[in-house]
This record gives sequence, structure tokens and C-alpha cells, in this order.
Amino acid sequence: MAQRYGAGIWHFATYVDRYATDGYGDPRSVIDAIGLAGQVRDLSVVDLNYPFFGGDFTNEQVGAALEGAGLSVIGITPEIYTRTFAKGSFTNPDPGVRRLTHELVTEAADVVRHFGADYVKLWPGQDGWDYPFQVDHGVLWKASLDGVGALAAENPDLKFVIEYKPREPRVHMSFDSVARTLLGIEKIGLPNVGILLDFGHALFGGESPADSAQLAIDYGRLFGMDVNDNLRSWDDDMVAGTVHPIELFEFFYTLRRNGWEGVWQLDQFPFREDSVHAANHAIDFLKAIERGLDVLDVEGVRSAQERHDALGALALVQRALFAGYQE
Amino acid sequence: MAQRYGAGIWHFATYVDRYATDGYGDPRSVIDAIGLAGQVRDLSVVDLNYPFFGGDFTNEQVGAALEGAGLSVIGITPEIYTRTFAKGSFTNPDPGVRRLTHELVTEAADVVRHFGADYVKLWPGQDGWDYPFQVDHGVLWKASLDGVGALAAENPDLKFVIEYKPREPRVHMSFDSVARTLLGIEKIGLPNVGILLDFGHALFGGESPADSAQLAIDYGRLFGMDVNDNLRSWDDDMVAGTVHPIELFEFFYTLRRNGWEGVWQLDQFPFREDSVHAANHAIDFLKAIERGLDVLDVEGVRSAQERHDALGALALVQRALFAGYQE
Amino acid sequence: MAQRYGAGIWHFATYVDRYATDGYGDPRSVIDAIGLAGQVRDLSVVDLNYPFFGGDFTNEQVGAALEGAGLSVIGITPEIYTRTFAKGSFTNPDPGVRRLTHELVTEAADVVRHFGADYVKLWPGQDGWDYPFQVDHGVLWKASLDGVGALAAENPDLKFVIEYKPREPRVHMSFDSVARTLLGIEKIGLPNVGILLDFGHALFGGESPADSAQLAIDYGRLFGMDVNDNLRSWDDDMVAGTVHPIELFEFFYTLRRNGWEGVWQLDQFPFREDSVHAANHAIDFLKAIERGLDVLDVEGVRSAQERHDALGALALVQRALFAGYQE
Amino acid sequence: MAQRYGAGIWHFATYVDRYATDGYGDPRSVIDAIGLAGQVRDLSVVDLNYPFFGGDFTNEQVGAALEGAGLSVIGITPEIYTRTFAKGSFTNPDPGVRRLTHELVTEAADVVRHFGADYVKLWPGQDGWDYPFQVDHGVLWKASLDGVGALAAENPDLKFVIEYKPREPRVHMSFDSVARTLLGIEKIGLPNVGILLDFGHALFGGESPADSAQLAIDYGRLFGMDVNDNLRSWDDDMVAGTVHPIELFEFFYTLRRNGWEGVWQLDQFPFREDSVHAANHAIDFLKAIERGLDVLDVEGVRSAQERHDALGALALVQRALFAGYQE
Repeated sequence: MAQRYGAGIWHFATYVDRYATDGYGDPRSVIDAIGLAGQVRDLSVVDLNYPFFGGDFTNEQVGAALEGAGLSVIGITPEIYTRTFAKGSFTNPDPGVRRLTHELVTEAADVVRHFGADYVKLWPGQDGWDYPFQVDHGVLWKASLDGVGALAAENPDLKFVIEYKPREPRVHMSFDSVARTLLGIEKIGLPNVGILLDFGHALFGGESPADSAQLAIDYGRLFGMDVNDNLRSWDDDMVAGTVHPIELFEFFYTLRRNGWEGVWQLDQFPFREDSVHAANHAIDFLKAIERGLDVLDVEGVRSAQERHDALGALALVQRALFAGYQE
Repeated sequence: MAQRYGAGIWHFATYVDRYATDGYGDPRSVIDAIGLAGQVRDLSVVDLNYPFFGGDFTNEQVGAALEGAGLSVIGITPEIYTRTFAKGSFTNPDPGVRRLTHELVTEAADVVRHFGADYVKLWPGQDGWDYPFQVDHGVLWKASLDGVGALAAENPDLKFVIEYKPREPRVHMSFDSVARTLLGIEKIGLPNVGILLDFGHALFGGESPADSAQLAIDYGRLFGMDVNDNLRSWDDDMVAGTVHPIELFEFFYTLRRNGWEGVWQLDQFPFREDSVHAANHAIDFLKAIERGLDVLDVEGVRSAQERHDALGALALVQRALFAGYQE
Repeated sequence: MAQRYGAGIWHFATYVDRYATDGYGDPRSVIDAIGLAGQVRDLSVVDLNYPFFGGDFTNEQVGAALEGAGLSVIGITPEIYTRTFAKGSFTNPDPGVRRLTHELVTEAADVVRHFGADYVKLWPGQDGWDYPFQVDHGVLWKASLDGVGALAAENPDLKFVIEYKPREPRVHMSFDSVARTLLGIEKIGLPNVGILLDFGHALFGGESPADSAQLAIDYGRLFGMDVNDNLRSWDDDMVAGTVHPIELFEFFYTLRRNGWEGVWQLDQFPFREDSVHAANHAIDFLKAIERGLDVLDVEGVRSAQERHDALGALALVQRALFAGYQE
Repeated sequence: MAQRYGAGIWHFATYVDRYATDGYGDPRSVIDAIGLAGQVRDLSVVDLNYPFFGGDFTNEQVGAALEGAGLSVIGITPEIYTRTFAKGSFTNPDPGVRRLTHELVTEAADVVRHFGADYVKLWPGQDGWDYPFQVDHGVLWKASLDGVGALAAENPDLKFVIEYKPREPRVHMSFDSVARTLLGIEKIGLPNVGILLDFGHALFGGESPADSAQLAIDYGRLFGMDVNDNLRSWDDDMVAGTVHPIELFEFFYTLRRNGWEGVWQLDQFPFREDSVHAANHAIDFLKAIERGLDVLDVEGVRSAQERHDALGALALVQRALFAGYQE
């Protein structure tokens, strides 16, 4: 079966940051963004922010746009990181905001049901701290787990995926790494909580994304993934494959070896690039990766790995990946 | 003479980022921000963005607000990093945008003259690159220097200060370090171009801010400075002294030793804090630093430094700085 | 009861690195090092490498030296990171080396019993990988846990502590973070395996050391700790308190708040400093920290933390810590 | 003319570090290392440490070994970073050590003449600082320049190349970046001082190695280069091309575009790998890079760069570099 590709719908939005406060382009609604996503070759699914951005749209309106674009929904991402949640969503010191978080995610769960999507995606980017002494760390972490746990318990028919990241916008984010997130998920102890593994977040956190994937798989918790690239020191959300192709290859190698069959998603922020072009460019590279995996001498790699023979394994990898080795 | 304190007026604005697109607070105009700045104890001067934000204000209106707040202007920062300049200001591939940059900075120069400020501050945060192979590095760097040089040549009555930073919003910024900026300034070869040294940018870039200050001073190019704090891996613009007090102390020690007498400015982004409180908090710490410098055994430090005796110097520093050493 | 202080005995050795291959000083034996440790004011306990370095010493000889120096033993650190173990100890691809690891740690366990020490310290610094594709990550991690688990199961009368670190000497170390290590310990599932938390390793890994301590305490696994300092990007093992005093203060604040009463140990590598002086310097600062904790308005800090009020908490912290705030 | 390849002779030594103090292999003499270098396919030149390691060898003995191995000498690297120089070579607080530095480099200059090599390579890795307040930064930097300048002035018939690096073994190294080094070289003002650009040092320092090369070339100071790879946060000296192939490609693209024709050298530390194999592996990849450059649509890249069109340029680059794009 052909590999399916997906993207966060924000890939097709425009962005602001603290300097270009007038934005890197004219604002777009989710309907506009779906239209652009529909222009990408080989895109099948999208992850939608909720509430829908850029206007007051019903599920039906969004559904019609998706149908027109030939897209379906893989996940819903409730926006628990906007102004209201500036000091946290699940961990906000104000119980009223924690309640709002719960309500917003509960609504998002209904949107998941409406679209028959795979999961509610939780990215509590404002949960964490900025300064030494700002929080009681034990209290904060407990609140993170209680918040997610309550939702997962109340919605046993749905999957919840946590997307961890070391930091941004907080100076330190609570769900900061694959191991911390798994530790929390094990503490929550429910079967319907898993990880959405972002390749770039793992790189940024000093992880080997392949190792992170293996660990999440070994705990039965790799519920989703997406890719992009960065310079290892920030979540640059650059186009996949443009900086770290070999670790990207190892990441997909690990998924294939484990028989993990899910959507290959993009989480890119093309601030200054055409977003359709950026998605096509990335998918072209992912297809090159697929072809590389098809010709890779997997038995040779495994045999080299049994000896921890890095150069032996990499010789096979480079032969499969780089043109200069072809005769 | 009492030490004067200053701040970038943006310290008193509210912020957006790519997640909290609705902002971390209600928008404020420059007039609002000046009003808040006026509430800070011991603030004398501000650096103003140009165009003035939040409305269509004349120099006179801004001047009246400043007078009401008891503030004067140290510098003007033309906003050469908004949407128009997303792919660069001085280095934009479009000559029309490069011309716009020149015009905007020229207008800012007139505002400097109007307010009798010290300098035009150039922070070309969009000049740089994101991806490998994106630019011809020689062409890009030359454009950076040509752009600044032309302005400095046309306005010999004014000072221009360049504020370098490793990155953000671009993945790599052209004026990325103290040494690169000095190298460029020497190439430009005009007396009225200098450096605005941001303590946090130096830390972020792996520099010792004290060393950066000394180097800029030795070239006669330290025209201004500001402070804040961060975790060394990003320009967090946290409140000064909250993370790296010892290096902050060394920074001010270096300024004092060189007889550098200028304004001690703040460049903080209190996303989630009250901005007046954040400024007062920082200035309180700067005053603690001043008292520490007053009691420091400078001759002892110099003597230890002649032997590269770190612990000898630090024993004196810690005695001057920390309460636990007081009898 | 007075706070007890300790140090790794390697603090009093001399060092080599890949450049100064002739070493930063004349080699010393463990007996020499114990003699130096005995000269440090207020040092009570040491952690000893095993085999004893610099000669062929019996437990009795070492014991006599310790007695002469007024020191007792807190832990034994088997050297599972020398040439034999260059490609790993517990995770070595060669089962013979894995067996050697087991044997060496088993011997170290007997030394722990001999000296009535608190624990066997495991720092498997060569367990990990350098290159993409070098290892099968699932196999590697399982071997890490199996190796530690077998030892803990065979020696239920002893504690085993794992000291994690992001990297060095391997480009990536298996036990890389507090969360990963706790995840592994939970999987091992034995009561006598815990964490030795190194303040600098946590900083280096982008953790908040206070948060790491809280997490390990909440799992009942904080069996030991040591402190030092660094620039957050490498395990510099500098003298404690010279760069990050505020986070060090938060770390000890967290221990005290949790009623954690153990030895405050040093893990410093004074490459170019006198080692006795470096230990005294650090302990002087730790005592300043203690005095700071004694005067800190803890209720005020807790109240501020309930609001996530960073500046409120830090105002109290700075008042307790810095001399410039004293009247 | 065929591209010539070279390597630092230390590539074929064995290593120690602060943990594996018994070394990652049996010690080798320079003669042993030359023998191994001779086994590498396509290696033409080596850079030799001076004094020759592992024994008391004359120039003639070394020359005979080189002849037997079919190698010639590109540079001599005086070991100004061993125990004697632990607190600095050119910047040592002890004038006697500064004099020793001068004498050792002067001897190395004679070895350069003896072998008809291209340059004396200066890597003052111990010149810098570890702690805040350790040094007077102005004095330190001046000593760095005075030391190099005196040698260059006394030996106008020879080239001196400075190899910069952000840090290690010092926590901060004086010649830390391409820009700082160029700034210093311009201050020295002699034609025979240039840069040896290490690809990995540039990456480690947050530079774009291609940009660093362009800058050094534009100042007429790129006298030599070498390559390797790392994870951007340390000087891992891994095998070239194993982590960052695209930036390596851009680096060589930049050299070719500027008509820079010198030796492509390796500076790798294969701690746990066979050193001949590691060199062959790297050179195989460099040849793949060469073939990639031969087929690259250079005009297309230049045209895309004129628009700062990253994805346009990268599409051509990926087509030239990756097998998955070949039909």
C-alpha cells in the first residue's frame, strides 16, 4: 500500500512572531489553508487546529472544504497555547483556566469524533516555567498529568497524543522529552494516551529521533509522528531533509523495521517560502527516502549494528542514499 | 554622578509569537508604553521604535508624552524587520526593499535629530539566511556593509549602532557576533558606526559578555549597551540578573574598569510579567551590582587576573556579591 | 545536625585529555588523593574509584589512609569506562566485556560492603553511540537495563545509583537524563536502584536541576547527589557556584523542602587549579547557600510559586542571596 | 588535476581522554602512524605534530618513513597545548612559558623548511579562560596577537595558519571564531598569517562553514582547511559526511566557486574505529561530493541564490547529491 502523507494545517497558514508583528503574509482562514493543502501532490490527511482559525466556521463548512480538497482529518489540535493560556493550560495557577483547558479539549474531542479522526493532539506549549524558583516543580508536573489523565479517562473511545518539545514558547516546557513524556504516560496509566513524535523536537532536545521512536514503540505509545528539520538548537520547523537527511533516514528505517505503519506527516513553518512548494519539496525528499529504504541492505545494516560497527552500517546507508555512490 | 538607566520602549509593549497569535496582552500604543515607562523608578531614557507603534503619532505627540513621563530619548530603532523586510533589509534580494530600508532609516535619523538622541540603532534581524545554499554568502555580507555604510556616510552628524545577535528571526543573522560586527565596521571605515552590545546576545552566542565589551571598547566602538538574561541557548530577554549574576557583574566591572560611562539599559521582553515591575526588579538588581562594584577589591581582582587565578578573583567577587559571605 | 560534605576522590587526582596527553600534573595514587582530601576543611566522605588508581592497594591500605585523613566512604565507582569498555560496558557488543563489567561491579559491591559505604555508583559513560545507524536502539537500551538489573537483583543488600549524563565520552550516553533513567529504573523494578543526581549533568542536559531533584524524589529514587558548574553546553565540572548560583540555590532549596538529608558532594575536575583550594572554595560557597536558605522567606516563596509569580519569588531569593540587598 | 587529500597524522594515533586514561588503544609513534597513513587509498599529504610523538625521531627518520609511505608534508603543528602550556601558550601568565612557546614554534618553523611544507599550524587550544573574572580580556587578546605576530614577523618566508575553535580544552578559546581570528589577523597586519578552517569547528561555533570559508577567502586568508563532522555542540571529530552532508557539500561548493585549490584534509579522531578504515570511508564520501559538484547545475543554484530561493537551490543540490532523485 502506498505511503500516506499528511500535514498540520498550520503549514498553510501565515505566521507572526515577536518582530514581524504584521505577519509574514496576509492572514488566512482554515478554509484558505485547506485549499492550499489540496494543491500539494500526494497529501491525504491534515491535522486541524481547533477552534478553526480565521473565522467562525462549522464542522460542516470545514468538512466541505476538506472534501473539495480531497483530504481527511488525522487529528485535532486544541489551541491551549493562546493568550488565555499564557501561564499554562493544564498547569495554570488559575483553576478557572485549567477548567477552560478541559472544556476546550473536550470540545476538540467531539470534533475528532465528527471527522472520524485518529486522535486529539495535545501540545501544552505554555505549560512549564521561565525562571528559577517560578514554580513548585512537583505541583506543576502533577497538574500536567492530572489534566491529561482526566481527559483520557473521560473519553476512552478516543486517543490522546502528547507532542513534547524542550521549550518555546516557555523557556522550559513540562513535557520536554520522549522519556519524560513516557514516564508521565505510564503514571497516568491509561491505554489511550500516547506520543506524537516530532522529529525536529527530538533533534532539538539532543535525542536521536530514531532512538526516541524505538523507545516510544517499545512502550506501545507511538501514536503519531511528524517531520521537519532544524539546526538542533531550536524548533526551526524547516523543510524536512534539508539539513539532517541521514538521521531522517534512520528515523524512517526504525519505523519500517518495527512495522510501524502510519501517516508520514509534515510539521513545517514556511515563514518565507510558498507553503505548497515547501510541502511538495519535503514530500519529494520523503519519497527519495522511501526509495533509499527499498534498496538498503537491511541485513547488512543489522549485522553491522550487532558489532556497533558504525562505519560498516553507514557505508551501506550512504550507498543507498547518495548518488555519488551509484555506478 | 548617579548612574542613568534606560530601556527599550518595547519593554512596555505587549507581544505576540507564533503560538499566542492573539498576543500576551492587549495591544498598546507607544504613548501607552511611555506612560508605563514613566512609572518605573529611576528610568531616565528610552529607545523608541520607529515608526511609532499603535497609532499615527507625530514627534510632537510622542515628545509630549515623554515630557510627561520625565523621559528622554537615547536612540531610535527603525523597524527594518517587519513583513516588508521578511527576506532582509540591507540584504534583501529585491533592490526596491533595500531602497525602502534606506529610506526608513533615513527617516529614523531625522527622528534622532528631532529628539536629540544619541544614535540610530540598527538591528537587521531579517538579514541572514535559513537554509544551506540559500544565499551567496559573499554577496550577502557585502550588502550588509554597503547598506550601513551608505547611511553612515550620508549622516556624518549621527551615530549608528549595530546590535548583533546570533539568530532569530532568521536561522542565522548576518551580524552574528561581536567580532563579525567589528570586522564589518572596520571594513566600512567610518567613525560614526559602532556597536550596541546586548549582554544576552553575547551570552547566547557563546561569548563572554565582558570580553565582548572589552573588544568593542578596544576598537573604540562600544557606543551603547543593554542587559537582560537567558539560558545561553536563545534570546530569552528575561529579567537581568535572574540567571547569570556573576557574568553580569563581570560585564559591569569591565565597563567601569575602562571608564565607560553610558546608560545602563534594559532590553527585556516580559511576556507574562507586569512590565513596570519587571523593570523595577531589574534595576534593583543593577543597583545591587553597583554596590557590589563599590566594595569589590579591584586591586585584588587585577592581581589575581595577572596570574589567571580564577578562584582568587572569584573569592573577592563572591565576597562582594553574596550575602552569605558578610559577617 | 551539621551538613556533611563529600567529594569524588578524583577531585584530588590529576587529569589527562586528548590534547594534554602528558597530563595536567604528575600522576597521583588514590593514597595521595586521600591525603589531599584530608586537607579540605569540612570534608567528611569520599567516593572512591575502583580499582584503586595509581598502584596495587588493598582495602586495608586504603582504609588506613582514610582513617588518617578523617574520611569515610560514601560510595564506590567501578571504572567501567576505561579502554576495555570503550564500546560499552553493559551494552558492549561483546558478551565477554559485558561479563567483565558484571564481574568488576560485583567486586566493587564487595568493596562497598568492606567500607560500609552507601552505594555502588554506576556511571556507564561508554554505553551509548556516536553515529547514526551505529546501534539497534532497542537492543542497546535493553542491555543497559538488564546489566544494572542483574547486579541489583544479585546484591539486594546494597544500593546501586546510576549517574546519568547527556554525553561524553560517547557522543550520546544511554542514561542521558533524569527521566530516561527513572523510566529505566521503573522498568527494572527493584527497590535498590536509584539516581545519583549531578547538578552539572542536569544543567548540561537542559534540565532544571531543581525539577530533576523533585522528580527523582517523587519516585523515591534520589539516592545521592553532587554539584559543580558548567556553561550548560558541556560537563565542565567547574567549581560549584561560580557560574549558576541561583539555580544551585534552587536545587538545595528543593532538597531542603523535601526533607532530603544526605551528603552534599562535589564532583569537580580542577584541571588547572589546586584541588584542595578548589574544594574549600566550593564548600565556602555551599555554606553561603546554607545561610541563604536559613534566612529565606520560604512561605513567601511558596506563596509566590502558587501564583507562578517568578519575580515575587526571585525578589525574596535575591534578598537572601545577594549582599547588595542587605541594609 | 586530481584533487589531493591529506590528514593530520594524529588521525592515525590512539587517544586518551579524562575517563579512558589508559587510552583507546596501544600508544603509537609517529612512525607507526605514518605507516598507517600510507595504507589509506589516495592520501597524499600529512600534517605532523611537533615534537614527533612516541619517540626521539630525527627529521631524517620521519622523512624516510614518509617516503616509504608515499606521503609528503603539508604542515607542522607545534604542540603548544600540553602540560607546560596548561594555562596558555601565547597568553600564559608566565613569561617563561610564553618564551617556550616562541621557541617551540620557531623550531617547528625549521621543520616546515626541512620538509618543504606549506605552513606552521598554530592551534593555541589552551589560550583562553575557564571562569568569569579569570583574566583581563584585553591583556589576553593582545598577548594572543603579539605572540603570533612576532613569529610571523621573524619568519617572513613561511606561512602561519591559525586554527580557531570555540572551546576545548579551555572552556573558552581566544581564537574562537572565523571573524575573531580575521579581526586578529588584520590587526597583526602581516601577509603570512592566515586561517586553517576546520569544518567541524565552524559548525560547532554556530557558523555556516560555507560562509566562514567565503569570508576568509574574501580577506585572502584561507590558507588551509580540514573536514570532519559533529553534532554541532562539540568538536566530536567524527568521520566527514556522516551527519551533515549538505553543509559539507555547500562548503566544497564554495571553495570550488572561488577557485580555491588546495588539499582536502581530514581532521578526524576515530577513537573507537580503525583509523585507516575511517580515512578511506571519509575520502569515499568526499569523492561522492566531488561527483555531486561535477553534475550540479551551478548556474541554476546561482540564479536561485540571487532570489534567496532556498528551495530552488536545494532542489538542484538534492538532485545532484541523493540517489533517490536519479532516474
